[in-house]
Amino acid sequence: MKMNRHILGSSASSYAPLLERPQLRVEELSSTIEDIFASVKVNGDKALLDYTRRFDGVSLSSLQVKNSEIKQAESSLSDTLKKAIARAYKNIYTFHKAQYPEDVVVDISSGIKCWQKPVPIDKVGIYIPGGSAPLFSTVLMLAIPAMIAGCKEIVMTTPPNQKGLIHPAILYAAEMCGITAIYKVGGAQAIAGMTYGTVTVPKVYKIFGPGNQYVTAAKMRSFQSGVAIDMPAGPSEVLVYADDSGEVDFIASDLLSQAEHGPDSQVLLVTSSLRIMDSIEEVLASQLETLPRRDIAAQALKNSHLIY
Amino acid sequence: MKMNRHILGSSASSYAPLLERPQLRVEELSSTIEDIFASVKVNGDKALLDYTRRFDGVSLSSLQVKNSEIKQAESSLSDTLKKAIARAYKNIYTFHKAQYPEDVVVDISSGIKCWQKPVPIDKVGIYIPGGSAPLFSTVLMLAIPAMIAGCKEIVMTTPPNQKGLIHPAILYAAEMCGITAIYKVGGAQAIAGMTYGTVTVPKVYKIFGPGNQYVTAAKMRSFQSGVAIDMPAGPSEVLVYADDSGEVDFIASDLLSQAEHGPDSQVLLVTSSLRIMDSIEEVLASQLETLPRRDIAAQALKNSHLIY
Repeated sequence: MKMNRHILGSSASSYAPLLERPQLRVEELSSTIEDIFASVKVNGDKALLDYTRRFDGVSLSSLQVKNSEIKQAESSLSDTLKKAIARAYKNIYTFHKAQYPEDVVVDISSGIKCWQKPVPIDKVGIYIPGGSAPLFSTVLMLAIPAMIAGCKEIVMTTPPNQKGLIHPAILYAAEMCGITAIYKVGGAQAIAGMTYGTVTVPKVYKIFGPGNQYVTAAKMRSFQSGVAIDMPAGPSEVLVYADDSGEVDFIASDLLSQAEHGPDSQVLLVTSSLRIMDSIEEVLASQLETLPRRDIAAQALKNSHLIY
Repeated sequence: MKMNRHILGSSASSYAPLLERPQLRVEELSSTIEDIFASVKVNGDKALLDYTRRFDGVSLSSLQVKNSEIKQAESSLSDTLKKAIARAYKNIYTFHKAQYPEDVVVDISSGIKCWQKPVPIDKVGIYIPGGSAPLFSTVLMLAIPAMIAGCKEIVMTTPPNQKGLIHPAILYAAEMCGITAIYKVGGAQAIAGMTYGTVTVPKVYKIFGPGNQYVTAAKMRSFQSGVAIDMPAGPSEVLVYADDSGEVDFIASDLLSQAEHGPDSQVLLVTSSLRIMDSIEEVLASQLETLPRRDIAAQALKNSHLIY
């Protein structure tokens, strides 16, 4: 697996190209996004169903996932996968529970107390991308903190497949995290739905989650309408820094975990170890072979850098 | 002082108009903002100086505030004001210092530690509006947390007056908070400068501070270019909730403190006390008389609500 190799000298001017990040082209999409937002604002559920027909290729009779579908998801998953999800749930819960902030109360002067008190956001929306992999890990990572914070309403939107279904692992993880309702709608139209609210999809106060460039542009648009967003999530990136004590196997896995997100992902390894520099490409190549998403990861690695 | 009075009954449908917030019209300004951003990106300092001539009515020879100007500011302020600023500094410092977050380290499973470690943002930009009042309190409230966090570079932009000067209280407060550099530039052009960087004004990673609709629209634009912002600060709002133990004098002062920000401010009092409901308008009227900014506050009060 050949990556771009760099041995850095003392010339800082040569560093700039290494720091260039994968680009988001949010602005070019703005007229498409405006159309979708305007249509969802006026036509509500009808617009969501129309866009789902057009973009996801399926005519739905209803947007909301039924309890029976969630039940069925549970029975269709293997015990191995359910155990893995339960273990991830426990780990993520433990980590975020420990972050739960305390009130900060300060006596500023005699008789005057000032305090900082974190309060949960009543209604939050979580976006889970569709596409080539069922991101139930994203469900856990977004919904568990919301549940720990005490958000009253946690709704989820995610695009259906061409049969009008959501991957059972996503439904199972959502149910485990106490998500209030799940809607079969994706893309910019899902974000517009949670921004304005429709008869079916509630308006939320903050939207979380990754997505493609349309979803990202839609979240920026939503922010302009007064809905908070977590961040404009761009293509995946990771930078690993390793000295000579690093395990090449682990480093390769960490790099591939983000490289496989998409061909526009970018992963960087900065190392002070010639041993790692000289062995990483071979280890990446051998791990790649076993990856179901090896073609995507291999493309991303071409745009990535090894820096000594 | 007459405000809009409401006695709420059981009909929740009548509540909606009470919850309407002052509007931001960010989208209408977008072509102006695009022009300013494009010009600053290409022409840098020259564009900043041109816009300052056009919008602030002053031809500057240099954008950066000199040390001699800061020295002079210090000597031109009264001891009373300096003492008040020092006291505010101490209170704000105490409050924010207590909020300094700890690392959260969790043993997830044998041999695996996960941790959350807050790190300061290297370069931050602070915007201080010009206009009818010198907002040195805003300097303190934005710069002190940045200083406590450990930001390496804290730059400030604020529009000059027609003589090309910044109010000495702003310079004095900035100096006290260890601000790295102060630039005489305001409006959308200041935000564009901190977004792209010019020869004089550095590019920053996050922009903080209030401003008019142009500044707010510019911050949203900056966010699209990958610079973080604190929030899209709209017109000032405050809601006071008081039961019968409330002090009418204090409540009136709290309401006026935000009403005086601008004619589009909105202040709300929700109270379960008929005593407060019946006396607040008179107290507001009497406090208004002594306010230098009473005309602005009076206009804002007209759009505000007293709710029993």
